[in-house]
Amino acid sequence: MITAESCAELDRADQLSSLRDRFELPAGLVYLDGNSLGPQGTTIRTRIEALLDQWRSSLIAGWFDHDWANLPLTVGGKLESIIGAEPASVVACDSTTVNLFKAAEAACRLTSGDVLTDVGNFPTDLYVLGEVARRNGRRLNVVEPDQLAAGIGPGVGIVAITQVDFNTGRLHDLASLTSQIHELGGLMICDLSHSAGVMRIDAAAVGVDFAVGCGYKYLNGGPGAPGYIYISPRLHDRIGNPITGWFGHEDPFLFAPTYRAASGTRRMQAGTPNILSLVALDEALAVFADVDLDLVRSKSVALTSLFIELVDQMLATTTELVTPRSADERGSQVTLRHPDASKLVVELAGRGVIVDHRPPDLVRFGFSPLFNSYSDAWEAATALSQIL
Amino acid sequence: MITAESCAELDRADQLSSLRDRFELPAGLVYLDGNSLGPQGTTIRTRIEALLDQWRSSLIAGWFDHDWANLPLTVGGKLESIIGAEPASVVACDSTTVNLFKAAEAACRLTSGDVLTDVGNFPTDLYVLGEVARRNGRRLNVVEPDQLAAGIGPGVGIVAITQVDFNTGRLHDLASLTSQIHELGGLMICDLSHSAGVMRIDAAAVGVDFAVGCGYKYLNGGPGAPGYIYISPRLHDRIGNPITGWFGHEDPFLFAPTYRAASGTRRMQAGTPNILSLVALDEALAVFADVDLDLVRSKSVALTSLFIELVDQMLATTTELVTPRSADERGSQVTLRHPDASKLVVELAGRGVIVDHRPPDLVRFGFSPLFNSYSDAWEAATALSQIL
Repeated sequence: MITAESCAELDRADQLSSLRDRFELPAGLVYLDGNSLGPQGTTIRTRIEALLDQWRSSLIAGWFDHDWANLPLTVGGKLESIIGAEPASVVACDSTTVNLFKAAEAACRLTSGDVLTDVGNFPTDLYVLGEVARRNGRRLNVVEPDQLAAGIGPGVGIVAITQVDFNTGRLHDLASLTSQIHELGGLMICDLSHSAGVMRIDAAAVGVDFAVGCGYKYLNGGPGAPGYIYISPRLHDRIGNPITGWFGHEDPFLFAPTYRAASGTRRMQAGTPNILSLVALDEALAVFADVDLDLVRSKSVALTSLFIELVDQMLATTTELVTPRSADERGSQVTLRHPDASKLVVELAGRGVIVDHRPPDLVRFGFSPLFNSYSDAWEAATALSQIL
Repeated sequence: MITAESCAELDRADQLSSLRDRFELPAGLVYLDGNSLGPQGTTIRTRIEALLDQWRSSLIAGWFDHDWANLPLTVGGKLESIIGAEPASVVACDSTTVNLFKAAEAACRLTSGDVLTDVGNFPTDLYVLGEVARRNGRRLNVVEPDQLAAGIGPGVGIVAITQVDFNTGRLHDLASLTSQIHELGGLMICDLSHSAGVMRIDAAAVGVDFAVGCGYKYLNGGPGAPGYIYISPRLHDRIGNPITGWFGHEDPFLFAPTYRAASGTRRMQAGTPNILSLVALDEALAVFADVDLDLVRSKSVALTSLFIELVDQMLATTTELVTPRSADERGSQVTLRHPDASKLVVELAGRGVIVDHRPPDLVRFGFSPLFNSYSDAWEAATALSQIL
């Protein structure tokens, strides 16, 4: 039997508990929506104020005096550590959507065959993949998540997934799917938006060809923070960016009339980088330099496991658990189904428990190991059980 | 004979002179680079701090409680006033480069024929247009700026220009070129990055089909501020966004598996909007609500005319004027040619005059009527003449 006290005990033993102090979270709030929008780090404001000072006093010179022009690579370097990628393989730029478009178009130029994805991919991914496939004369096959492995066969050139399903929290076996499509000579594109920052990804070891992700969920970069794109160094000589912008040029400030692509992933930049938001993301990523992602994943599994036990204990008759029970098969969220999902989310918010609703009938509980506690899980389950 | 005193006299008579107080400009600095990066408005910091407060306290609820989700349209509305566009025809999103890509791809779906541009177009525009043309099986014809009108003939489907040449300051006759290509059934795409905010554009009256622009030059939105895209309402039923992202969906928060484009220009959004930078741009545009763009253009012409007279008076034997002498043919910058251009820019900066260098031998003096004075022109010309 889990109790408030047993949860508090787990919190006292939590090696990561002190990290919560690095976030500006309203007192008493149980924030289980870091998978939608991460909270603000305590150093963000100071860092942004410093950027505003740079803009005010250095003006145009800031691009070089303060190294703004390199921020996509600076932030990319931090992301490389977080997703286990090779040096100089990631740039932070544009949105996840635009980066997926670039990756999918680039992949279509490297391989023939259809595009395979699953219904659990994020909507923007499904939309982009559908249009890219159409423009390139490919079919987009959308299967059930558990049919992906079976679907990888002759005629498939590209597999594109989101590693963790935003609705159900199901975690794909990225390594296995990647090796499967590689055996057929195809390419893997993976959206890490719902996995980066809460588990080891080891992009280099897994061999994923392209990855994209967003900066504002578990990475806490702020509302609409820039996305990023990873490309395996194996492909660096052969990739093209469909959006041939000046920041992907070998020497942007030469203002040359002819495009010459920069080396590697750098060429996946397009327009002028957005400095204000890159600075916020850069600052948000600093916390990851101080954490062991294995510990983060362990705590994530412990939090979601505890919450599932609490569901069994308090909510088994009133809600349906949607997220896989096996820890190996889930990310850092737990999703419950209830016909009044949208109303429940509002009532939970009234009790200081912030979660979110995904149409039509899902309630998502997102656990960010950097700031969520075992007591958060207890309070959320208790509040929901009181409401029901 | 122009003197420091006659310039000071012009400043005293300047109806817009008080607007300089709305910008954070270091005392004594002559900043003639607002066409590269506009200075920080005095209210930007407070507005950004308010946004940081919203993020901290409202967290995910900020998207609706603080209307973040509508910022691309809110900012678009302000831009509509600035460029003379119809209601609901502009959205602020992505970068100029990405927006030009979307516009050019959309235009290719609406018309056949080659793409015509000129060597004075901004490099990123040339790169993007070249790749879009190639991908769509069109030719990109790049002619001299004064050959554009002659180049508009059978076989041309799209004319794509930057209204004001970033190197020379030459101003294209957008209305005339637009009506020429329309007579042939083709489309006009115009990049307003170097013209919006310093002159009336009257996009609606001119009839331009697509326009894009950036937020960080004369609009003062901050380093790498978001860009924008305008599409004529004539085309709203027929345009497609090649990057079919969730924010261009009719109802993004339905998370529907199938893409249904939002109405009009709204569908040209792609990924999650970048709130931090949109808020800065929104705040930066507020000043335009209080200014008459005819007065702004008059002052711009007066500033550049004065500077050209000063060049004649002080620099005629040492530099070459590159910008057209006729005010009707130039934007809000004056460009001089000198073999030591790059060194001159550094020496001018040493004397507190910030201008910029464009390879190989150009020095650009950008005049922002909102904060530059006639004395700025005097000091810049005097400093350069002393150096030479």
